[in-house]
This record gives sequence, C-alpha cells and structure tokens, in this order.
Amino acid sequence: MSYDWISFTTDYGIDDGFVGVCEGVVARIAPGPRVIHLSHTVPPQDVRRGAAVLAQAVPYLPPAVHLAVVDPGVGTDRRGLVLVAAEGALVGPDNGLLVAAAEALGGLRAAYELTEPAYRLPTVSATFHGRDVFAPAAAHLAEGVPAARFGPEVDPATLVRLPEPSTSVTQGRLTTEIRYVDTFGNLQLAATGADLDASGAEPGTTAHANLNGRSVTATVGRTFADSTGDGLVIYVDSGARVALAVNRGSAARELGGKVGDQVVLLFAR
Amino acid sequence: MSYDWISFTTDYGIDDGFVGVCEGVVARIAPGPRVIHLSHTVPPQDVRRGAAVLAQAVPYLPPAVHLAVVDPGVGTDRRGLVLVAAEGALVGPDNGLLVAAAEALGGLRAAYELTEPAYRLPTVSATFHGRDVFAPAAAHLAEGVPAARFGPEVDPATLVRLPEPSTSVTQGRLTTEIRYVDTFGNLQLAATGADLDASGAEPGTTAHANLNGRSVTATVGRTFADSTGDGLVIYVDSGARVALAVNRGSAARELGGKVGDQVVLLFAR
Amino acid sequence: MSYDWISFTTDYGIDDGFVGVCEGVVARIAPGPRVIHLSHTVPPQDVRRGAAVLAQAVPYLPPAVHLAVVDPGVGTDRRGLVLVAAEGALVGPDNGLLVAAAEALGGLRAAYELTEPAYRLPTVSATFHGRDVFAPAAAHLAEGVPAARFGPEVDPATLVRLPEPSTSVTQGRLTTEIRYVDTFGNLQLAATGADLDASGAEPGTTAHANLNGRSVTATVGRTFADSTGDGLVIYVDSGARVALAVNRGSAARELGGKVGDQVVLLFAR
Repeated sequence: MSYDWISFTTDYGIDDGFVGVCEGVVARIAPGPRVIHLSHTVPPQDVRRGAAVLAQAVPYLPPAVHLAVVDPGVGTDRRGLVLVAAEGALVGPDNGLLVAAAEALGGLRAAYELTEPAYRLPTVSATFHGRDVFAPAAAHLAEGVPAARFGPEVDPATLVRLPEPSTSVTQGRLTTEIRYVDTFGNLQLAATGADLDASGAEPGTTAHANLNGRSVTATVGRTFADSTGDGLVIYVDSGARVALAVNRGSAARELGGKVGDQVVLLFAR
Repeated sequence: MSYDWISFTTDYGIDDGFVGVCEGVVARIAPGPRVIHLSHTVPPQDVRRGAAVLAQAVPYLPPAVHLAVVDPGVGTDRRGLVLVAAEGALVGPDNGLLVAAAEALGGLRAAYELTEPAYRLPTVSATFHGRDVFAPAAAHLAEGVPAARFGPEVDPATLVRLPEPSTSVTQGRLTTEIRYVDTFGNLQLAATGADLDASGAEPGTTAHANLNGRSVTATVGRTFADSTGDGLVIYVDSGARVALAVNRGSAARELGGKVGDQVVLLFAR
Repeated sequence: MSYDWISFTTDYGIDDGFVGVCEGVVARIAPGPRVIHLSHTVPPQDVRRGAAVLAQAVPYLPPAVHLAVVDPGVGTDRRGLVLVAAEGALVGPDNGLLVAAAEALGGLRAAYELTEPAYRLPTVSATFHGRDVFAPAAAHLAEGVPAARFGPEVDPATLVRLPEPSTSVTQGRLTTEIRYVDTFGNLQLAATGADLDASGAEPGTTAHANLNGRSVTATVGRTFADSTGDGLVIYVDSGARVALAVNRGSAARELGGKVGDQVVLLFAR
C-alpha cells in the first residue's frame, strides 16, 4: 500500500524553516507524494491542541500518511510510532497526539514502534526527530514500506492517551467543557449535536450560558447570523460539536474562556 | 475546459487546519490540480482586504480556478457564486470578494449561483461553506465541469460590489485614499501611476502629504532608497498604484494611516 | 541540468499574497517543479536571519533552485545573482543572503549577474524584483537554462558577505555569540559541537553562562529534558551548533538574549 498524500502538523512555527526541512527530507525519499499542511502553529508543546486539529481534519483528507510532531519529550525514551488506521496511517510521538485522529480515520488497527535504523536519517539528532526520524518514516510509508517493517508491534492498550473532556446532559441542562478555541474566537465545546438535542434545546429560544462565574444569554441557532443583534449564538459547528460564537465578533474575547473551562448551558423548558 | 491550478485565499488563519481541510476536499475530488496559497490571514471577515489581495495577485498566476472565502454571511441567504472571467474562473460568496479579481482577469463573462447539490459535500454545515460548498465547486470546475452546471445564471448587475475608493487630480494636487497597507507598512493609495503623471509630479522633487491632519514632506522617487535619508518616498508601486513608503522603515507605523483614510499630495510647480 | 524542486525564502510575510504571486510567476514559466516554502516571515530586511534560515535548511532538501529574497536594496544598483553550488543553484540579491547556503551546498562554483532581459518579466518594477526578476530566473534555471546565460560572470571575491560571528575556546571556557533565536526561544550560538568538545565540557555537569552581565547556571546535556528541573540546558543542537534551551520553556524569554550578544560559557574542570 502506498500513498499519494502526506498531511503535516507541527508546533514548529513558520519562521525558522523547520517545516520546509522536513518536507525536503520527505521529497528526497519520496518525491511523488504531495504534502498538505494542516497547521504548524500549534502552540509549542501543546499536544492536546495538536491532537484536536489533527483529528478534526483527517476525515476530509484523501488517503494519506498523517505526519504530526508536537513532541516535548524528544530525545527521551518516549516511543516514536506508526499507527495504522482503517483509512490511513499516522506517524509521530507516543504522547497522545495521534490516537484521536486514528479513531476519526475509522479506528486504530495496529501500532508499531519506530526503531528500524534503515528508515531514519543516517545521523539522528537528540532534538529534531521530526527531521531525522518522523519525516523519513512518513516518506518510506508513503512509498509503500509496510508498517510492520518499522519496528516491533505495540499493544494499543499501552499507547499514551489524552484525558477525554466530560459532558453530562439532563433535560434543559448541558454541562461540558471548552474543547477548542479557533482563530475566529469561536468556543467549541466537548458536547455534540446529539447532546444538544438530548437536552431539549429549541432553535430560536434564549438560553443561559454559565462560564467562569458569569452568566450570559445566548440564542440557540444554526449559524452566526442567528444571534439577536450581535449577541451570542449556541449552534452545532462544522465538526458536529456544540459551540458558542458572537456574530462578527469573538466569543473568546468577550467571554474569556479557554480550553478545559467548564460551561453550563441552561435551556428554557 | 479544465485547470491545472487552484489559487486559494481566505480569512481562516493558519492555526486551525481549516485551510488543509479544504485542500483535502479538493484533493479527493481533483487530485491533479496544484494549489497556490495567496493568503489565509485576511483579517476575519474583512471582505475589502480579501478582494484587494486577490485582485492584485491573479494577473500573475497561471490559468486557474480562484477559490476565495471571506464570508461573514455564511449560512444566511447570501449566494454562492461561480464567476467566469476572460482568463480564469472564481468561486466564493456573493459579497464583493470576487468582482475586482474577475475584472483583473480580463473582465467578467458570466456568473452562476452555486445551487447544484451534486457539486457539494453530501452534508453541508451552516458555518463552513469553504469546506462543504466552495472547495468542492472549485475542484469540480478544475476537473472540467462547465460553470453553467453549478446552478442558475446570475445577472452580473445583481452581484454585490464593494465601493470604489475615489481619486481626483489637478495640476500639483492629488486627492485620494489609502487602499491597502502591506506587511512592510507601505501605504498603497487608490491613485494610479497615470494619476501621478497627470498631477505633474516631478521625480526627485519634494512633495507634501496631508494625512489625518498632519502634513509631512516626501521625495517623489522610483524606489525605497530614493528617499532622502530615511524619510518618506512617494512612488508608483509594483501594482501600478501610487504609494508612500519609508526606506528601511514602516510608513504605516510612522504616519498611522489605515485603509479608507484620505491622503492629499501637494507637488511643487 | 534541470531541477524538480524550488525552495523559496523571503521576508514578504504571509498576509499580502506576494509569495503566491511569485509562485504563480514560477508556475507560468515552469509548471513542473514543485515549491518547498522555507520561511516567508524573515523579519523585514533582516538579511542575516534570512541567510541563517536558508543555510541551515538547504542540506536537507532535494536538488533544487533556492530562490531567496530579503532585499532592502531593491531598485538600487545592488546586483541580482545566480550562484552555482556543488549541489544546487541559488537566486537572489547580492547582499550576503545566499553565500552561506552555497557553502552549505558543497561550495560555490560560479556566480553570474542577472542582467538578461529574456529571463525577466516584460515589465520590471522598481520595488518587486522577487516577482519580476528573481522568480522568473529561478523558474528558467529549473527548466534547464544554463546559469551562464543569465548574465556576465561575477568574481566570487566581489560578492557581498555578512560578517562571521566569532568564537574562541580555551580549556573550560567558550566565548561566542548568539547566532539565531528560534520559535521555541532556543538560543543557538556560533560555537559548534567541536568547540564544545575542545572546551572540555562534560555531559551531566553544571556550567555557568554569562550573558548581558548576568550569570546563570545550566546543565551540559544532550536534549531538553536533560536540564535539572526546568532549568537551562547547554547542548549541541540539530544544526550541530551549541545552544541554550529551557525545558518546556523559552531561553530567549528567560535570558533576554538576541542575535549578536556575546555569551561566555564556563565549565567546571
């Protein structure tokens, strides 16, 4: 199995050329596959955010090797991984970055540790495994090297996983957490559209949102413009999660929420 | 007619993976065409700036489908469009974003509304038409689907257009507006090189620029280094517009001008 | 000789579409070669930083034309260049931007001035030679036009060069300069791993670093996690230079160092 596409996600930033260096390493090994850049501005070492960006994107990509490096443990004994999912493969560190994306790609099928020296650069630095270990592995995978050749099989139960944000629903009440804050300042919650339905929220009604000790009112709507005036809207976003937005504004700036903060939504009966 | 290139301009930012998701949607439908990214850091919902970036770039690109999404009205009844220009096609919302680029591509030939479900993703969200509507349309267009298949023809007179900045010229005086402020802080004015000629400005002479109640002196020159010392230079920029720059500095920072501000240039007789 | 790849480095920023315009100019002349973007956020007109980004990246790229434009002298009589190195070619202004990269590509073999009008756009602006002069030259080079066709040969001794940062080593003492500060705030010094060995530094020991009148302690280590606690670590980085980092933090933020600052490292005997 070979791949025509490689997706690439890091916290390398866009200033230093680190991303292009990895792309060059890929091109020397595998000149055919094309690279789709997802994000290289994951905040430094923010594995949780990297995992969220990756998991949300992969279902929309063509069959690909998904190369992702947010790697505070580089140079320690944390494992490097190839994960095989139902609809693609993933390469990166064993710190929780890849697991949710594997699930979004139809489920994890097998995992291997990256140990085989033949699929690394001849010299491996202690601090830049994106260049020396992960990019070469992604390139060889895309060229058709079977995943089992990269090293010993890993028991999926031993993979590092990130904590799941919690959500609870009762009639008229949804208790959840902020899962992601995007460029527009929209606050994506862990709750799904199904949770919103289960809470009995009615489109067009007014709800209360409690966040960090403040209570604000919001319209239950379908898109940004459904807010009354320039107020808050509660809607199901393009990732099928409940979200809070301000029409033509930033909910993050107005409400000050950050990832992990609890949000309670109260709906009229 | 098919296209080997797709240009892509948005206000999606580079952090969240939204751009890569759209590129993935394109790749699944049209794996052949390559994507040239123009800008994804148009300020959120700043249609005027997105339109200026796009119109200035398209004359230099190969024949392409130009996909552009700056879309504060997503999910409302604003129309989605395919525009056919003399030298390319454009896809995006009907809010003025595309019209100037169509003119820069040799003129608008026809417009169609994006209504045909066959050229969208199977599920269309209310808030991410870049992914669900516009990227698929651009990909199908690039693959050779005729523009008329995407939906009903639209009378060009009904397209949303942005206001044109105004310029007036008399001998020794040019009254115009700031049209664009670039990364370097250069202030591009709406006036063209022809307007500057008509005003009688002489290269090498000193002019006065009035902006926001201040009067500053500037050298009429050809490039940044033509300023005397590190002062202001008035020149015709690479987009054939009159511009104000500071050699090795930022005119925007020194003068504080922003898009839409009036500028009066007075030239010695 | 033709090239399948073009690398691209500028200070154009990512907002204005200037990068995509140049990529479009390349695509019209040379539709085959693919572009690897190294950085477009070199600080405006910071030739030294652009040169460091480029030189550090090129050894990892496939055979390529390396197009680089950080060009405060655009429109003056500074020369435009094609440099031929042992393992690739470079195009950009004669201001020191390209020389270190040519050396990193196996050494400079020949240099030519870009004067031939056939390899420029028909109209050349005074302020955007990236678009009008350098991108077309890179595209023609990649298509196989011999370097000598672009203009007269240039004596390498006449090329503009940047000052080399200085390093001196004695037993137990390394005196050097900050050469580069990356996205993570790691301070890369001009001293190499060989200099560190020559100083007698022992892995696992504590050293003193003097910077801007402050003295701080640091662990000599191999990777970020080798610092004791969240302290400073002195290590040989992925570019084979000595560097200072803070584990899961930013040395630049904690120490306040900038490029060119002197650093003295004192090691226990």
